[in-house]
Amino acid sequence: MCIDEKIKIGIDTYGADNGEEIFVLAVKEISNKFDNIEFYLYGNENKLSELFNKYGVKSSNVFLVKTTEEIKLDEHPVMALRTKKDSTIYRLGEDLISGKISAIISAGSTGAILALGQLYVKTLDGIKRPAIATLIPTEKNMTLVVDSGANMDADSEWLLQYAILGSVYYTEMIGVDKPKVGLLNVGVEPTKGNKLSLDTYKLLSNDSRINFIGNIEARDITKGLCDILVADGFNGNVILKMYEGVASSLFTVIKKAMTKNIMTKFASLLLKKSLKNTLKKYDAHEYGGAPLIGCRNLILKCHGNAKKNEICVCIEQAYNFINRNLIEKFNNSLRG
Amino acid sequence: MCIDEKIKIGIDTYGADNGEEIFVLAVKEISNKFDNIEFYLYGNENKLSELFNKYGVKSSNVFLVKTTEEIKLDEHPVMALRTKKDSTIYRLGEDLISGKISAIISAGSTGAILALGQLYVKTLDGIKRPAIATLIPTEKNMTLVVDSGANMDADSEWLLQYAILGSVYYTEMIGVDKPKVGLLNVGVEPTKGNKLSLDTYKLLSNDSRINFIGNIEARDITKGLCDILVADGFNGNVILKMYEGVASSLFTVIKKAMTKNIMTKFASLLLKKSLKNTLKKYDAHEYGGAPLIGCRNLILKCHGNAKKNEICVCIEQAYNFINRNLIEKFNNSLRG
Repeated sequence: MCIDEKIKIGIDTYGADNGEEIFVLAVKEISNKFDNIEFYLYGNENKLSELFNKYGVKSSNVFLVKTTEEIKLDEHPVMALRTKKDSTIYRLGEDLISGKISAIISAGSTGAILALGQLYVKTLDGIKRPAIATLIPTEKNMTLVVDSGANMDADSEWLLQYAILGSVYYTEMIGVDKPKVGLLNVGVEPTKGNKLSLDTYKLLSNDSRINFIGNIEARDITKGLCDILVADGFNGNVILKMYEGVASSLFTVIKKAMTKNIMTKFASLLLKKSLKNTLKKYDAHEYGGAPLIGCRNLILKCHGNAKKNEICVCIEQAYNFINRNLIEKFNNSLRG
Repeated sequence: MCIDEKIKIGIDTYGADNGEEIFVLAVKEISNKFDNIEFYLYGNENKLSELFNKYGVKSSNVFLVKTTEEIKLDEHPVMALRTKKDSTIYRLGEDLISGKISAIISAGSTGAILALGQLYVKTLDGIKRPAIATLIPTEKNMTLVVDSGANMDADSEWLLQYAILGSVYYTEMIGVDKPKVGLLNVGVEPTKGNKLSLDTYKLLSNDSRINFIGNIEARDITKGLCDILVADGFNGNVILKMYEGVASSLFTVIKKAMTKNIMTKFASLLLKKSLKNTLKKYDAHEYGGAPLIGCRNLILKCHGNAKKNEICVCIEQAYNFINRNLIEKFNNSLRG
């Protein structure tokens, strides 16, 4: 990338629970901060024009790309991509492949985004499957869970590739040299686990491209023992959702205990600020989106219930990803 | 079982982090409550005699069974069972098979207990593999996770059997008619998941012996949507440990926020009782042990870090299991 060249980010304004508004607001806020980014907002022309007017979005680096179709969450992803050629996701894919844009940000159908990555944008040479890489908060730093839901039935070679690409991503985006790679397993011993984890353990142990520290039991994930946690897409997804579910349930019961009577309510008031500060890092929206690593170009998936702030973080993430030439570094890392 | 016949429970006094003492104390406490149980404590003769004297255990229904070997946690389970014929676990197995005792309670090596169940005690006719069934607390009732760690690479037929046996166990032990069976998956739609979950969904949907309610995402487990959660042993184990890890990490950070300064410490004092009451149900020790369901006789695994109370709960659990003829009911349920 030439130093003067603008980074062109394509944004899917469909598919977020909070509608197109969050994208327009995020772009308005961040377009002043980065004058070397061009923003391409794909979606409904009338709706977006209206929001541009409403919020006074007039920057010379913000563009509207009219599309007429939308891929809904309940549609079959591959079928939808085949038939809806004027959907935001398909059009973004086309423009990413042709080089009109350098990155896609979308809160839309995960299935459609995965299919776009795997079947249209395609993987880097030698990469078997793109994987979703999601950062989760731990007691120490953040841990990158790869794969957190792209490929259900994986084999050990794919998991090794997740480890390699995940390490590059973590080093470049979080700034940690030789990040620690752990393998999700039911015990720390190399002899524990299912066929996949036994096979993967052997591969990871013998690969000098990564800093493999061994098996990680699920009870130790939130202690932050590793920087990158490698798992198949089924287990990675279970990990993420279990984290979300347990945290949500515990907060529900703790809240109940804190509002039980007038004394506990008073105590809760005194604790509010300290608790809020402490728990801020457990807000998934603080961490931006999850890239589909292993593709030839950047596709970044943000949460369906994202708010403006998360989209701002995603834009910065995409900017850093491209600015640091992650794709080139992925390619180099694969060569060893 | 004849109504006057005593229920003979064999207890492994090795393998618990807290030593033999917790078993002796539990038996002392509970032997007065149940005069139709005979307790057989397997372990070191000197150590147990000493503890019997120390705590004045003189009941006519408590017996000491001398063994000279111990299977350690880091030993290869199958090898250990083959070579240590005078270990508590092997001896308990022999006596369970010969009918000298009707149940085993152990806090020892899970691997050795599993191997004992699978290779020596053996499974009920038609049952492919015994599974560990663990109760976990949810916002509503308790959910039984089957399999929570016995069989790593399972097939869909095994999972169907877990669902059937788990339903019988839940009905008889928790007292819920037609308990709801859920399948752990990454989405609620029948088309989501890996090969195992897709295959299992079909089998569970078409079996009238269970009340199958569909896929359960990990984020909904602690909401208590189902009574029995079916998963392969790898995923079931990940679920349990993730639950434990997330809860522990959150309590750690919340505790930090609550002891941050003098004001938060004061507030915490006011909240202490209410929080303690609310969180009591999240103490794993309240739920006793996890049976290895599908075996010809009862083997109950308790936590390595069990205290006296958990052993008391385990003894009652074993008593109820035998008293309600669970093995016979398992057999009947399999016939449909």
